[in-house]
Amino acid sequence: MAKSKIKPLSDRVLVQPEPADDKTESGIIIPDSAKEKPQEGTVVSAGPGKVENGNKIDMSVSEGDTVLYGKYSGTEITLDGEEYLIMRESDILGIVS
Amino acid sequence: MAKSKIKPLSDRVLVQPEPADDKTESGIIIPDSAKEKPQEGTVVSAGPGKVENGNKIDMSVSEGDTVLYGKYSGTEITLDGEEYLIMRESDILGIVS
Amino acid sequence: MAKSKIKPLSDRVLVQPEPADDKTESGIIIPDSAKEKPQEGTVVSAGPGKVENGNKIDMSVSEGDTVLYGKYSGTEITLDGEEYLIMRESDILGIVS
Amino acid sequence: MAKSKIKPLSDRVLVQPEPADDKTESGIIIPDSAKEKPQEGTVVSAGPGKVENGNKIDMSVSEGDTVLYGKYSGTEITLDGEEYLIMRESDILGIVS
Amino acid sequence: MAKSKIKPLSDRVLVQPEPADDKTESGIIIPDSAKEKPQEGTVVSAGPGKVENGNKIDMSVSEGDTVLYGKYSGTEITLDGEEYLIMRESDILGIVS
Amino acid sequence: MAKSKIKPLSDRVLVQPEPADDKTESGIIIPDSAKEKPQEGTVVSAGPGKVENGNKIDMSVSEGDTVLYGKYSGTEITLDGEEYLIMRESDILGIVS
Amino acid sequence: MAKSKIKPLSDRVLVQPEPADDKTESGIIIPDSAKEKPQEGTVVSAGPGKVENGNKIDMSVSEGDTVLYGKYSGTEITLDGEEYLIMRESDILGIVS
Repeated sequence: MAKSKIKPLSDRVLVQPEPADDKTESGIIIPDSAKEKPQEGTVVSAGPGKVENGNKIDMSVSEGDTVLYGKYSGTEITLDGEEYLIMRESDILGIVS
Repeated sequence: MAKSKIKPLSDRVLVQPEPADDKTESGIIIPDSAKEKPQEGTVVSAGPGKVENGNKIDMSVSEGDTVLYGKYSGTEITLDGEEYLIMRESDILGIVS
Repeated sequence: MAKSKIKPLSDRVLVQPEPADDKTESGIIIPDSAKEKPQEGTVVSAGPGKVENGNKIDMSVSEGDTVLYGKYSGTEITLDGEEYLIMRESDILGIVS
Repeated sequence: MAKSKIKPLSDRVLVQPEPADDKTESGIIIPDSAKEKPQEGTVVSAGPGKVENGNKIDMSVSEGDTVLYGKYSGTEITLDGEEYLIMRESDILGIVS
Repeated sequence: MAKSKIKPLSDRVLVQPEPADDKTESGIIIPDSAKEKPQEGTVVSAGPGKVENGNKIDMSVSEGDTVLYGKYSGTEITLDGEEYLIMRESDILGIVS
Repeated sequence: MAKSKIKPLSDRVLVQPEPADDKTESGIIIPDSAKEKPQEGTVVSAGPGKVENGNKIDMSVSEGDTVLYGKYSGTEITLDGEEYLIMRESDILGIVS
Repeated sequence: MAKSKIKPLSDRVLVQPEPADDKTESGIIIPDSAKEKPQEGTVVSAGPGKVENGNKIDMSVSEGDTVLYGKYSGTEITLDGEEYLIMRESDILGIVS
């Protein structure tokens, strides 16, 4: 896949956000600006882990994991017209299993 | 249980807040916005503990513990329509036994 | 005692503040809002001590100690209708012996 | 090449930003001030890596790598009339391969 | 002495400030509010020293030392009607010998 | 030379800024206040290097190096009527070779 | 000398600032408030050096050294009617030899 062309550095993770629902529960279609930013996404690729005082810290997430992250976490980048986020592993709250 | 599908990372803890009382002591029902935010909750799942200079720090709380935490601690997430908090163990003040 | 049901985490301490005097020296009773916040209290329970780079740091205060602490230190919690403070040991200035 | 005359210190990297597209997808030429700052560039030269507590940390990027970096990262310098950026490796989000 | 009842924690020091002069050089008595805060005092009691990564750091001041400290250093406490300061040893600039 | 009388402490470096050009490319002489601050200079003398946890960190620049540094880096000092900068090595972006 | 009665703690240094020139180069006497604060002074006494993780860091300056320091560095103290500065060694930019 095109986006796997990015190799994140250190403890960074490339995440593809899950599309926000564009319908409310009652079925009303909400316009784009009113959508809440998604907080769930899929790990597309993960860095090698950060180095702390000479010790490499292993990553806790890996490619394919569905992860939760805080709103506004990470840096948005556009690859081949799609939106991705690069964030540090410390911005990831948990893994959805 | 559905919420145990979340595996918190590092020293994070998934907490289910205790419902705030919706009656004052004199029995008057108070509307939703006037309720104080709960500061007590139950640990639904706990992360593996954080790594500091290569040493894994064991968690002091575990699933099922009733914990106290500061107002506004943690990040609110909604799972299956219920509100949870993901917070770091350092946001937990104590365990109610 | 009811308040000993709280087990503080890390280097935190549960302190019962000493009641502020409600009389001035000349005997005038001062209303509740004008009372200075107490800065002296009794340790009700103490955490196990914090862990720093894998070393557990022993606590310097223990249950029953009368301690001095800065105004506004700690987080107020209400247990069984009484006010307590949970603070870090580093907020405690000294022990009154 | 002239710009390789700069030897970055520590964990710094000299990056040549990729020119921003000066056409929108529909072919309209956009004036200079409206161009988004590029976030992709080529590593022209890389420092030796930083020293942390006596341990040299190896660099993860090397000359010729195409890298992604946050907008506003680094310090702009002009060499022989061309714009470059000197940034720390920690400002680099990932390598495009 | 009454004030020696306080045992400062960690690297804290209980200091009795030297009374500010209440006369100017020309002999005019200045009212209380115009007095400059004293910056010299006597160590009444000193804590055991702080612990850093498992190493206890010995104190450099001890009971009876006359010390200089920055204006506004420390926390004011009142013991038996007298004003004292509890400050960290790092707030003490030097010892007057 | 007179300015070599200064021995910088720790990881500091004494830098003689390169005079800013006082002509624009078209030959117009620009008055003093409009000149951009120079960002290139020559190392006049370098300190011994800083000590971190008991390890001396060797300096990466030495006397005579032409260095690049961020605008506003360092402290300006005047020696024998000439302007110099004392800055930390970490303020130096790279060496021009 | 009277001022050597002060023994600075840790890595602090007692500095006697050099009197600011009270004439401009053209010989005009400038009033006291217009004088620039001196940035050069003489070390009157130096502390033993700071302790970092159990390692004592040796001082780089010693009694009698003429030192350069940033404007506004240190704390002003008055001893026997003369103005001195107590500053940390890290505030000293270099030694004038």
